[in-house]
Amino acid sequence: MQKVIAWQNGAIKLLDQRRLPLKVEYLACKKVEDLAVAIEGLAVRGAPLIGIAGAYGLVLGVWHSDAKNLGADFRKSYRRIKRTRPTAVNLFWALDRMEARFNSLIKSGVAAGSFKKKLLQAALDIHHDDAVTCGLIGRYGAELIKKNAVIITHCNTGELATGGIGTALGVISIAHKMGRVRSVYVDETRPLLQGARLTTWELARQKIPATLICDNMAASLMAAGKIDCAIVGADRICANGDFANKIGTYSLAVNARYHGVPFYVAAPLSTFDVALADGSRIPIEQRKPDEVRRFGQCRTAPGKIAVFNPSFDVTPGKLVSAMITEKGVIRPPFGRAIKGISG
Amino acid sequence: MQKVIAWQNGAIKLLDQRRLPLKVEYLACKKVEDLAVAIEGLAVRGAPLIGIAGAYGLVLGVWHSDAKNLGADFRKSYRRIKRTRPTAVNLFWALDRMEARFNSLIKSGVAAGSFKKKLLQAALDIHHDDAVTCGLIGRYGAELIKKNAVIITHCNTGELATGGIGTALGVISIAHKMGRVRSVYVDETRPLLQGARLTTWELARQKIPATLICDNMAASLMAAGKIDCAIVGADRICANGDFANKIGTYSLAVNARYHGVPFYVAAPLSTFDVALADGSRIPIEQRKPDEVRRFGQCRTAPGKIAVFNPSFDVTPGKLVSAMITEKGVIRPPFGRAIKGISG
Repeated sequence: MQKVIAWQNGAIKLLDQRRLPLKVEYLACKKVEDLAVAIEGLAVRGAPLIGIAGAYGLVLGVWHSDAKNLGADFRKSYRRIKRTRPTAVNLFWALDRMEARFNSLIKSGVAAGSFKKKLLQAALDIHHDDAVTCGLIGRYGAELIKKNAVIITHCNTGELATGGIGTALGVISIAHKMGRVRSVYVDETRPLLQGARLTTWELARQKIPATLICDNMAASLMAAGKIDCAIVGADRICANGDFANKIGTYSLAVNARYHGVPFYVAAPLSTFDVALADGSRIPIEQRKPDEVRRFGQCRTAPGKIAVFNPSFDVTPGKLVSAMITEKGVIRPPFGRAIKGISG
Repeated sequence: MQKVIAWQNGAIKLLDQRRLPLKVEYLACKKVEDLAVAIEGLAVRGAPLIGIAGAYGLVLGVWHSDAKNLGADFRKSYRRIKRTRPTAVNLFWALDRMEARFNSLIKSGVAAGSFKKKLLQAALDIHHDDAVTCGLIGRYGAELIKKNAVIITHCNTGELATGGIGTALGVISIAHKMGRVRSVYVDETRPLLQGARLTTWELARQKIPATLICDNMAASLMAAGKIDCAIVGADRICANGDFANKIGTYSLAVNARYHGVPFYVAAPLSTFDVALADGSRIPIEQRKPDEVRRFGQCRTAPGKIAVFNPSFDVTPGKLVSAMITEKGVIRPPFGRAIKGISG
């Protein structure tokens, strides 16, 4: 497994996902600002992985602090990392978990050197827990996959998005190991092509048969009966099952519903935000127009054309057949089911 | 109006649409093979325009022929041009019209010099007729557009796709001149980005407010109530109203139906192929995988990843609210309506 993120010698080493699949390059974040910029620029992305990165970022923020500055440096780092990306709730979940640990360490009166090590351990635990969570999600989700399944997926939800084998892509990996996956259609996922660049890369490494498509092709594949199910991740799931995920997810869900194709969402409990009643409350990150006008160095649209570039869309819970979490599979009605697992 | 295609000094001068919007460059096709390659490579594209190009191509094929070789050269050119692209029926309609004219000229015993001029006139007529047709479609279609309309469109269906102002984009142009269009959302239309590169360029030149989106964003715009109607072109329309159009059209149609958004198709009668009972009969061109693995000149996906790259998809007539032709607007049930206008 490629090291996607690691704490190394007082810095955060990150696989730079913007360079994939053509180049495998690493960044070393030595300051919180480096880490924040890496998150904002999608060098590191994927809801659970953003949370893990944020957790390490808070450790980085105090790693060189004097005892008297621990609190101020922590809070400053917290504020900076919190504002990197607004949609994926896993980031805030991780930051708040780290903050709780920080506060309890302060209360316990631990000496500075030991303090930092224990705070680092909290981040390492978040990282490790996510790997365990992925394994559970993979195991529960694989049960939904029937023999010889042809699956469609969107964005990237694998090792490059989590601390483990992934969420939706983790389900695919486990199901494939169980001999249940015939092949996977990969939505390229414009504008930033996480499907084309990252998911294809991961599937190729696992030797899972995969076919890359443009996002606008899923509908005709479904109409031709070529897709057995769709499985995606999530960035934030509300109390009623509405969820935000990478832009294009909602279009896929509508097509799945229209064609009677089961539509599954795989996500850890850290993605659930039950304080939000429904999807209309989810903040949707808008990103720079040039992501649509170009890709990388290739400009394709006129420079001045207005652009709409929301990074996420919201899918109503009513379009979801089942959700797969580390506590098992939940089914509609989601309001009740989510209450049941969130306790 | 930019000259998109013209007969000039015994050659076909073409605006090279692969270079747009960054460069305005022309090709001069001096041999049939040049023209055929230009069609295959999408230097010239758009269903009606392919027909016009094919017509000129047949003239090119005999322009330097001796009288005794006219027939053989014509048939050779016909065969070469016919196999360039299989889906848009306008090409075959134009080639067959030219063949009928060729045969009638042969019968009439006209001398070679005059023969070639008259054959050229037949191609010029096809070109000119298409411009008139576009004007009629634009006029009839604009009646469907309500005041302050926000319209979504797919691919390119304007001056770059026809011999005149366009089909779907022609409707938008006329409706805009009538003060009825607030703005246009442009599907970028992966993989070859005819929307991002060509439609944005055309709309900007007409100063029609336009916003570029990734194809996967239309659904969430519709869910937000931002789209008043969708209007697209067509490459082949069957007897029952099923039609083939640029890949991604069907996904847009499904979303339009799901969200209650009117979905219009604008196409000349030369696009109708009533010999085909339904959409399952339409040959769908498959194109090279690298069109999907790359974005413009940039490689974005791993070189060996399998790809699905149909250039068109088929939308059932039942998802269409109305069709706009040069004979007026027709509405469901299309079987009957198409019979009515095809006579």
